[in-house]
Amino acid sequence: MLRTLRSIMGMTAATVAALVLTSTAAFAQTDPLPSWNEGKAKQTIVDFVAKVTREGGPDFVKPAERIATFDNDGTLWAEQPAYFQLLFAFDEIKRMVAEKPALKGKEPYRSVLARDLKALSAGGNKGLLQVVSLTHSGMTTDAFSASVENWLSTARHPTKQRPYSELIYQPQLELLNHLRANGFKTFIVSGGGVEFMRVFAEKVYGIPPEQVVGSSGVVKFRVDGNGKPGLVKESKVEFVDDGPGKPVGINRFIGRRPILAFGNSDGDLQMLQYTTAGSGARLALIVHHTDAEREWAYDRASHIGKLDKALDEGKAKGWTIVDMKTEWKTVFPAGQ
Amino acid sequence: MLRTLRSIMGMTAATVAALVLTSTAAFAQTDPLPSWNEGKAKQTIVDFVAKVTREGGPDFVKPAERIATFDNDGTLWAEQPAYFQLLFAFDEIKRMVAEKPALKGKEPYRSVLARDLKALSAGGNKGLLQVVSLTHSGMTTDAFSASVENWLSTARHPTKQRPYSELIYQPQLELLNHLRANGFKTFIVSGGGVEFMRVFAEKVYGIPPEQVVGSSGVVKFRVDGNGKPGLVKESKVEFVDDGPGKPVGINRFIGRRPILAFGNSDGDLQMLQYTTAGSGARLALIVHHTDAEREWAYDRASHIGKLDKALDEGKAKGWTIVDMKTEWKTVFPAGQ
Repeated sequence: MLRTLRSIMGMTAATVAALVLTSTAAFAQTDPLPSWNEGKAKQTIVDFVAKVTREGGPDFVKPAERIATFDNDGTLWAEQPAYFQLLFAFDEIKRMVAEKPALKGKEPYRSVLARDLKALSAGGNKGLLQVVSLTHSGMTTDAFSASVENWLSTARHPTKQRPYSELIYQPQLELLNHLRANGFKTFIVSGGGVEFMRVFAEKVYGIPPEQVVGSSGVVKFRVDGNGKPGLVKESKVEFVDDGPGKPVGINRFIGRRPILAFGNSDGDLQMLQYTTAGSGARLALIVHHTDAEREWAYDRASHIGKLDKALDEGKAKGWTIVDMKTEWKTVFPAGQ
Repeated sequence: MLRTLRSIMGMTAATVAALVLTSTAAFAQTDPLPSWNEGKAKQTIVDFVAKVTREGGPDFVKPAERIATFDNDGTLWAEQPAYFQLLFAFDEIKRMVAEKPALKGKEPYRSVLARDLKALSAGGNKGLLQVVSLTHSGMTTDAFSASVENWLSTARHPTKQRPYSELIYQPQLELLNHLRANGFKTFIVSGGGVEFMRVFAEKVYGIPPEQVVGSSGVVKFRVDGNGKPGLVKESKVEFVDDGPGKPVGINRFIGRRPILAFGNSDGDLQMLQYTTAGSGARLALIVHHTDAEREWAYDRASHIGKLDKALDEGKAKGWTIVDMKTEWKTVFPAGQ
């Protein structure tokens, strides 16, 4: 202690000045996006955030209007070999059979156990819709949340062998934090089920339930036999928050046009159009899945997360196309 | 200055101690709810906020879960002689006729101008529905917001002769502030139109658009002839956020059960039931309109803001019934 004090006291003014300058520089250079490679995408993001938060600047946006919307599947977490919510539904079907073996020979249980996608897709996806209905309705909202929570804590991705909640994109976690640190309110606007995403969005992304916009089924208020009120999920689809449904969902749930929107597929096209059509500074971004080694590579020909029209329009309009392979230093967070 | 310093220096230790004690007491007694009379309702509110925010206490609630929901009509602002949104619609019809006199003889314009409520209510409120449709659809969401904004800045209440945005309840503004100062997130959950309320909720109540839940009509995404994307309001009703629709709306938009809910009519009953059915500390409150002199007096027999079943159930279950006449020192904010 005494020695430290003495050495500080013994420093020359020049040394002190150098030290101060170094720390200032180090501070100024603290990188909010360490998992993003230096490049066009990162620079565009950093510049955008800087200009909309610069008080008195021409592009300044009031904090209340700093709305950022993110798609979920393929933008915040992975979506291969199928949307994770569908994998949840399959796992739930297996769990139901394990609990009640008599279901084994019945449809759609038989086809799920046999991985018979052809049978499930027959008759306009009749079997798949049954799978979704059986696993997403006929229960209270509380019971559904519990089933998702249980799945997230036990299930593993078929090829990556990690919990699904770890197959999130580290660069996007940093971006969400960077935005919030700069007064943005971050929202999910996804085609996924709103009640499915709300179970993990707060813990995993720091996005609270009331900032999650998604597709939904009809829910009814019921008072049960013991006089206890609750909400029961029905199998009827109520709202599809995809494609042109995204700006509609934004209007309905948020009521304010975003200044930044991030997607990865043609299902995000209208959200990006709607966002960039507002006045003032706007930023539209698209994750382009180009990394077959670390993640997956797919775009125009994929039936999951197809990116075709939005890629063309994005290039034509100067939206920021984030090439995963070159722009992201890290894809998934380090193992836990 | 010197004199002040000298007099402070000259104080005895006892004087200083007394001064400190007085200031502490004065500080502790700063009243967050000055427009509420001392009484049961005010005490219940203050105690509830204190216990759910006391860290380590048995009733502590994490800030993220401090959700408070307020009905709007009759709870945050007045609702007589008719819901203000309906008065907006009537005023809009008059404005349309002034701009296009040829409409004068046509229905429902004629009946509105003639105040012919009987004609408007004929055939299952056919005329009234037309009035709502003509003033709330067939335009972009931006154009609708502009019309509400224009109305709020020009219209006057028929008997109170004040702008509608001044017919809000001062005690409730203080309560909203007190809740937010204690880490609550405050929401409106109202049968009123969500896009109508969002125009003024932030300015008037400090509640941002994304925290307003209400009834809505179908909205469609459209790209106009100039390639500009926008949202167009259609006349089809999409969601009625009233009665059993309120817990459904809470689930859909907020995704978390409130710990405090405030209503004033039977349309709030299910929201209050749902709120109080959660575990842990909960508070349900009802404004009882008992003040014919300063505001209006109505309850069981009123066709607007009818309070009958909820009054009985509230009394039976120990909910806090706020008698406007005795509990509120001030009703409306001082004139501006």
